[in-house]
Amino acid sequence: MRAHNFGAGPCTLPLSVLEEVQAEFVDFAGTGMSLIELSHRSPEYEAVHEEALSLAREIAAAPDDFEVLFIQGGATLQFAMVALNLLDSQHEAGYVVSGSWGARAMEDAGPHGRVYAAWDGADAGYSTMPDPDEIRLRPASRYLHVTSNETIGGIRMVHFPDLGVPLVGDMSSDYLARPIAWDLFDVVYGGVQKNLAPAGMAVVYVRRAALSEPRADLGSFLRYAWHAETRSLGHTPPMFPIYLMGKVLAMMKAVGGVEALAKASAEKAGVLYDVIDGSEGFYRNPVALEVRSHMNVVFRLPAPELEARFVKEATAQGMIGLKGHRSVGGCRASLYAALPMSSVEALAAFMVEFASRNRTD
Amino acid sequence: MRAHNFGAGPCTLPLSVLEEVQAEFVDFAGTGMSLIELSHRSPEYEAVHEEALSLAREIAAAPDDFEVLFIQGGATLQFAMVALNLLDSQHEAGYVVSGSWGARAMEDAGPHGRVYAAWDGADAGYSTMPDPDEIRLRPASRYLHVTSNETIGGIRMVHFPDLGVPLVGDMSSDYLARPIAWDLFDVVYGGVQKNLAPAGMAVVYVRRAALSEPRADLGSFLRYAWHAETRSLGHTPPMFPIYLMGKVLAMMKAVGGVEALAKASAEKAGVLYDVIDGSEGFYRNPVALEVRSHMNVVFRLPAPELEARFVKEATAQGMIGLKGHRSVGGCRASLYAALPMSSVEALAAFMVEFASRNRTD
Repeated sequence: MRAHNFGAGPCTLPLSVLEEVQAEFVDFAGTGMSLIELSHRSPEYEAVHEEALSLAREIAAAPDDFEVLFIQGGATLQFAMVALNLLDSQHEAGYVVSGSWGARAMEDAGPHGRVYAAWDGADAGYSTMPDPDEIRLRPASRYLHVTSNETIGGIRMVHFPDLGVPLVGDMSSDYLARPIAWDLFDVVYGGVQKNLAPAGMAVVYVRRAALSEPRADLGSFLRYAWHAETRSLGHTPPMFPIYLMGKVLAMMKAVGGVEALAKASAEKAGVLYDVIDGSEGFYRNPVALEVRSHMNVVFRLPAPELEARFVKEATAQGMIGLKGHRSVGGCRASLYAALPMSSVEALAAFMVEFASRNRTD
Repeated sequence: MRAHNFGAGPCTLPLSVLEEVQAEFVDFAGTGMSLIELSHRSPEYEAVHEEALSLAREIAAAPDDFEVLFIQGGATLQFAMVALNLLDSQHEAGYVVSGSWGARAMEDAGPHGRVYAAWDGADAGYSTMPDPDEIRLRPASRYLHVTSNETIGGIRMVHFPDLGVPLVGDMSSDYLARPIAWDLFDVVYGGVQKNLAPAGMAVVYVRRAALSEPRADLGSFLRYAWHAETRSLGHTPPMFPIYLMGKVLAMMKAVGGVEALAKASAEKAGVLYDVIDGSEGFYRNPVALEVRSHMNVVFRLPAPELEARFVKEATAQGMIGLKGHRSVGGCRASLYAALPMSSVEALAAFMVEFASRNRTD
């Protein structure tokens, strides 16, 4: 039986894509080889690679003056690479510390450039996002780093701040499931392992003008320009995630692209928030209403013992990954792009039933 | 029909492993999910991860004072990471420039520390390896970098030089298909996409003592110590290559480990060198006899037109990837660990037949 996978990532991928990959896994396109055995210089693989690059541009509606890069190392390596590629001794960078991920992005950039917190939500328990006028930018700021969605706090940045400084955005956890305001960004990046593909790389969009300055002080892999010049084929690329992502992107395109995915995400999240808000306090979501995440719905029950029982019973019914992050506890349902509404409905029904059975007041 | 895959990498993997992966691709171990959909914190994945770490240590016979790391970015990122982690302003590093890969390793380390060529084979067309006494080490050398096998030149370093300075070795192209003289090394690394797994990471062995100095000047991903402390689980690891590599390593163990693989490699290469040497000059191998690669057998035919026809006819018979690297031309048969002797015998028979049909003298 197929699990209802509410994991925070890696996470569920479209079943039809998995079945396609399975069918052609040993013999890809009549080559007598698996795709993972092909040369990355073979015409068969190059077609897969170009298709994935092209779809990653098209689905995101990335303008022509952005490069699309496939870079191993996930968002974690990007935390450092952003600073390595964009900062010099004359500039610093502001960070919106909206949760664990914003904090980690700043921490990992720190060794590679001057960075500062332009806003910090720690005192509010990372339960909200800043208004633009709360963000304190210093004059020599090369960029402002934002995290579009915090998976642990369960909050999202609804509007990206337009403060006259280019944004750099980690969009790992709602990647290509919401429109991107390209005018505001110099770099958009994200690990692929939530909405798009198996773990193993980041997709990075970089404004070409940001690459103009040659960085002779970095090895080739650490330079965005190198990945751009080589179309991410300067070394053996992570062929399997690229190939699988191509199939996922083609499917995203077929169902209506980013706008349709954004709508579907809002609807899926809405079903669970309705259960929470209608539970007369049995379930509580600790997040400011207007910044509730569409991807990670966090909720508490009246007592930790109930939370443990909730997770255990849900798991027994095939609903996986509902335990909240170990740093905050509670419960969390992640609703990434490939999670079907039927899984959300199954969870909603279980939540209602569990509440009625365990209400103590 | 299964191709005979002589590609230089990515390359052939064991058919039985591919079939196993295919069979369990959509539903891994009864979880109702693909392995690539599992949380990297789930017990099911953690068992896979620990098994792969453990086998990577066991097969390589890596001593206890080495850490085993799985790091995205292939050997290319390691070119930079080695210098980032081992060099400081007091030290420099010597490089044995034995071919394209040795040269690239030095070039990519250059921005991150002082490096110099301790030996350079360019004048000899990269057709040989240095005797130890030809290597010129400077006094403040932190390490000497060597490339165990050059895939383009088709040469291998038969004995690793013991010059009183720790070695750092790129062993990508004969990884775990030859014994490693651990006493001599501080770091051994290699991309996995030749002998071990799909492209998407390097396996890095680092002597624990080399990690003792904390590097506060690097983002977490760029620090070996971070990967060691987190058992390569500090971020979402490349789960699919790790999982598949675990199966390949288990198979390597079953067939007798590194010693048996080294013997099999020598035998496979021997079959082709015998054809070349017995061809009365129709095929020529430009490499010094004693350093002939066991993994990449390079050869020329009497004329470029004949080489093109050779590759074309071989391809038509299901023998793939025989064209030499574009930088040197000619032909090349790569014989990575999973390539069966039957493929080598098919190629040998074709070479003999092609020579008899096209001999002009």
